[in-house]
Amino acid sequence: MHIMDEVKVIEIKKSVFAENEKDADALRSELKGRGVYLLNLMSSPGSGKTTTLIQTIKRLKDKIGIAVMEADIDSDVDAIKIKEATGIQSIQLHTGGMCHLDAEMTRQGLDNVNLDGIDLVVLENVGNLVCPAEFDTGAARNAMILSVPEGHDKPLKYPLMFSVCDVVVINKMDVLPYFDFDLEKCTEYIHMRNPRARVIPVCARTGEGIDAFAEWILDEVKAWKN
Amino acid sequence: MHIMDEVKVIEIKKSVFAENEKDADALRSELKGRGVYLLNLMSSPGSGKTTTLIQTIKRLKDKIGIAVMEADIDSDVDAIKIKEATGIQSIQLHTGGMCHLDAEMTRQGLDNVNLDGIDLVVLENVGNLVCPAEFDTGAARNAMILSVPEGHDKPLKYPLMFSVCDVVVINKMDVLPYFDFDLEKCTEYIHMRNPRARVIPVCARTGEGIDAFAEWILDEVKAWKN
Repeated sequence: MHIMDEVKVIEIKKSVFAENEKDADALRSELKGRGVYLLNLMSSPGSGKTTTLIQTIKRLKDKIGIAVMEADIDSDVDAIKIKEATGIQSIQLHTGGMCHLDAEMTRQGLDNVNLDGIDLVVLENVGNLVCPAEFDTGAARNAMILSVPEGHDKPLKYPLMFSVCDVVVINKMDVLPYFDFDLEKCTEYIHMRNPRARVIPVCARTGEGIDAFAEWILDEVKAWKN
Repeated sequence: MHIMDEVKVIEIKKSVFAENEKDADALRSELKGRGVYLLNLMSSPGSGKTTTLIQTIKRLKDKIGIAVMEADIDSDVDAIKIKEATGIQSIQLHTGGMCHLDAEMTRQGLDNVNLDGIDLVVLENVGNLVCPAEFDTGAARNAMILSVPEGHDKPLKYPLMFSVCDVVVINKMDVLPYFDFDLEKCTEYIHMRNPRARVIPVCARTGEGIDAFAEWILDEVKAWKN
């Protein structure tokens, strides 16, 4: 414990995570061998992950083969929503209360996806800015969605999440006038965590900005296959 | 694994949690003996927990003795904000990456609070709708904040969180016109999880509705001391 000015700060130690990195590397190699790009999509609850995903899939599904794995504690609504809106292969992973997915759980999901003709699998991780960041799923890349109402200070408060993501989609840009959200500051904070991170402002409801995210994905998938 | 209509649902089993309940009961008894009411406040990242707390403390601090423990992965901004805005005793708990607090971690925090003259300790848990719900902290009651931009479907997707909370504060009511948020439906979903739960709509930014939350706390603290 150390004392900072007038505010006490108590460091509570966490336990160390185990064999997951090895499993994740193995899964990533296998997927690379098969030419399948796995994107791990993370966010807080209610940031608009599923809506963003639907808009993105609509722009990509005639160009590449896509499948989606929706992870959730309990409900099935997201997988059904994706299937109904886009017609692509969509499965629901129930984590049984677990707050994240690791590589082994991701593999369990992939075993239930028909990968014939599939170039891109999107894993919609559990809505949570903490735990999913700690577990490599075996994905080629991590992406996250931060929504305007959550505030521009989130990269300060959830550092690991922002440091492991290569692209941060800022959603709900349409409500910017009603919130104290500073996009410039947010971008600066994101780059403190990961200087390479691409920041893409969008509005999933209207589709604005989604083209840029779809293009980023397309470039990534193409590069992965070479 | 079972197949639902056209959407595959894979149940991934979670490991079982251990001795925490016993620790939590012991801590709760001790606090009851000392006449200290511990409130465990949970929410998603960016729901406005700290702002709601500041508004609530301002209404209560002349009536009862209050201290706050702010749990966060890394930053100290919340504890400082609370101290500056209200002048009350406020400490920051760093979880070192952990996604929740358990009873033992809460006790570590309380050991650093001067409880003389304190009737209410508010524990602001890590911003996360999953893990904190699984760990009894030893609090007298659990409360949560759901904000309008997160959507009214959250009780369907994070069932445990809503079932363990006795009061759900619905924050950011001022932006209701800009979101598809149905308060009536939300209340119905909350009551599916916990029929006793009190639902209190507020706007922490303007202070609207906060009186009701402050009164709920005051009644609880009084009842705890009898």
